[in-house]
Amino acid sequence: MNSFDFYSPTYFVFGKDREQDAGKYVKKFGGSRVLLIYGGKSAVKSGLIDRITKSLDAEGIGTVLLGGVMPNPKSSLVYGGIETARREKVDFLLAVGGGSVIDTAKAIAMGAVYDGDFWDFFSGKSPEKALPIGTVLTIAASGSEGSANAIITKDETLEKNAAEADCIRPVFSIMNPALTESLPPYQTACGVTDIISHAFERYFTVTPNVETTDRMLEGVVLAMLHEGVRVMENPHDYDARANIMWAGMVCHNDIMGVGRAQDWNSHHLEHVLSAVYDIAHGAGLAVIMPAWMEYCIEHTDGTRFVQMATRIFGCQMDFDDPKSTARAGVEAFRNFLRKIGMPLTFAEIGADPKDIPRLVEMNNIGDGVTGGYVGLDKQAHFDIYEIAAGLK
Amino acid sequence: MNSFDFYSPTYFVFGKDREQDAGKYVKKFGGSRVLLIYGGKSAVKSGLIDRITKSLDAEGIGTVLLGGVMPNPKSSLVYGGIETARREKVDFLLAVGGGSVIDTAKAIAMGAVYDGDFWDFFSGKSPEKALPIGTVLTIAASGSEGSANAIITKDETLEKNAAEADCIRPVFSIMNPALTESLPPYQTACGVTDIISHAFERYFTVTPNVETTDRMLEGVVLAMLHEGVRVMENPHDYDARANIMWAGMVCHNDIMGVGRAQDWNSHHLEHVLSAVYDIAHGAGLAVIMPAWMEYCIEHTDGTRFVQMATRIFGCQMDFDDPKSTARAGVEAFRNFLRKIGMPLTFAEIGADPKDIPRLVEMNNIGDGVTGGYVGLDKQAHFDIYEIAAGLK
Repeated sequence: MNSFDFYSPTYFVFGKDREQDAGKYVKKFGGSRVLLIYGGKSAVKSGLIDRITKSLDAEGIGTVLLGGVMPNPKSSLVYGGIETARREKVDFLLAVGGGSVIDTAKAIAMGAVYDGDFWDFFSGKSPEKALPIGTVLTIAASGSEGSANAIITKDETLEKNAAEADCIRPVFSIMNPALTESLPPYQTACGVTDIISHAFERYFTVTPNVETTDRMLEGVVLAMLHEGVRVMENPHDYDARANIMWAGMVCHNDIMGVGRAQDWNSHHLEHVLSAVYDIAHGAGLAVIMPAWMEYCIEHTDGTRFVQMATRIFGCQMDFDDPKSTARAGVEAFRNFLRKIGMPLTFAEIGADPKDIPRLVEMNNIGDGVTGGYVGLDKQAHFDIYEIAAGLK
Repeated sequence: MNSFDFYSPTYFVFGKDREQDAGKYVKKFGGSRVLLIYGGKSAVKSGLIDRITKSLDAEGIGTVLLGGVMPNPKSSLVYGGIETARREKVDFLLAVGGGSVIDTAKAIAMGAVYDGDFWDFFSGKSPEKALPIGTVLTIAASGSEGSANAIITKDETLEKNAAEADCIRPVFSIMNPALTESLPPYQTACGVTDIISHAFERYFTVTPNVETTDRMLEGVVLAMLHEGVRVMENPHDYDARANIMWAGMVCHNDIMGVGRAQDWNSHHLEHVLSAVYDIAHGAGLAVIMPAWMEYCIEHTDGTRFVQMATRIFGCQMDFDDPKSTARAGVEAFRNFLRKIGMPLTFAEIGADPKDIPRLVEMNNIGDGVTGGYVGLDKQAHFDIYEIAAGLK
């Protein structure tokens, strides 16, 4: 096991109706004037924004609204948000929404107290500080409510870059599973897929002897296979929503990712898909991740995928041909994704195989290799997109 | 799933040699004068205390030493420590050791800034504040390095009471698995048993539909079954030590215990054993927990134990007689405990069956019932001790 630091100081407030205490928690964590960031009209229509604004009013906390965050959130909105945060002299950011809203808040939090361009932090620079962030989570998927990470897309180039810093971990996150009940089935399934992918990106590691986190990761994926089906059968199953919501957090606050090399190649391969075709990140992952697995099985001894197949998907071990067991695991994964309504092919997400050279170019790896369980060069990127496009 | 709050703000520093930075972390978290609390002579002899003192010196941090903490730590030492902490005007407590040392530090931390008797906090009162605590962990078992809990034994009555408060969560914990390599095999196995018991006390719940934490708990126990055997085969297996150490933390910081009723009856039944016979807590648990399981199987439909048996211990489901599957799970658990050298009976820990009425009396439940997966009245306490004593 590798050495590591782990720090997850977010205060989690989990359960029905708990967003009614948003004001109380903003106050507890030192906020007196809030930029409330949210996404589309549904948060307003449902009365959620109104309820939260009232709870802020009740604590004497001033509120400035910033709506309109879209999936795959853009840098332009961040620049606007930074300006608003400064002009309005807010001292706290409250993100009400899913990963896109929270990531936008994180970018604004860093940018508002920085003299340069916030994009610096999405180009490798570490921030020294950030405004404190609280969240009211309405979509279980990204894990951003408990993570040190954010992803923003640059408007001009569609570059999708990530930032990571402990200072952007939310100081509190309110998680009411009932708020996710109004999410359409497709978006719910995309969230489940994203959560599983966050487990798998950690699971496929070159670090040996990491049994404790291996087993925990397997456990969460097993739970998602069960709860994912349950929530599709009944969108108002509160407990299924609750299990998925907590899994979303633990899969990305890194408590199961410490001490082990991680992969993230499926995420990199996916990011250009959702940027170019404007699809949900989870849908892109459903197309890419099994394709990536198939590629890796053929370019390794396949052991890790055999472990996945037998421990998670209950496949019988074929001792004469272990790779057939590994492939059966990928098939079982695809069957699950299909069952919850996810796309599996380029065609199903409206992606054109002719775009593959462009997609590879956008990944911007030159003559290098993107590290992970299997290092991927340009040709490997081609191959994986071609598998996903059904060309291989 | 139940509503909950979860807050685990400890900064974890994990890996080889990392105790050399103890001074740096004390400084980072605001300490300028430290009460360094430790246990027996081995910490001194091994040079560990010296290394840590030097790292404190290097940061200009004054150090006052308080050694002599014993297993099942006593209130007398806490009173002495509180006096020393006040007299020496320390502003930070550094616990170097295992659960006993850390729990002593937690009790001192609350008592040093409180006008009344620190025992109030072990009798139900909530503390308002505590001195900050850092730890350098040398035994993987209690999870106290990341938990909000402490247990202290009152000298006069041998009462073993618990306190719980977020303000006694360590601000940092340094976890170097190599420091546990010098631990004797028996103590190592006691630690593994304690860790598994912390998972099981959470696992056996009356709360339905808690699949995510169920599966994570099963995962950690599965890992301990594997790593527990590995570490007994080779005490210098760093990775086995590392897996066990991280498992010890995650099993007790409560990330897998949230949203579900917990049990803790095995701990209550055990505490009087270790108090009366002065045995290791883990050894007492190895005797009590399987006996408690057998009792519960006969007094419920056994479903949870069938789940344990099939998912954790790989038992085949007997659909005609599910309870036989449940019992096979307990047998497999005992086989594991035996394999790592744990005692399983009253005789093996020097406990006299004639003491059972006294043990039950010490549990002090009167005509009540101790809550949990199965509520236990006085007779149930008798029965479980008798199972453990081989009388049933």
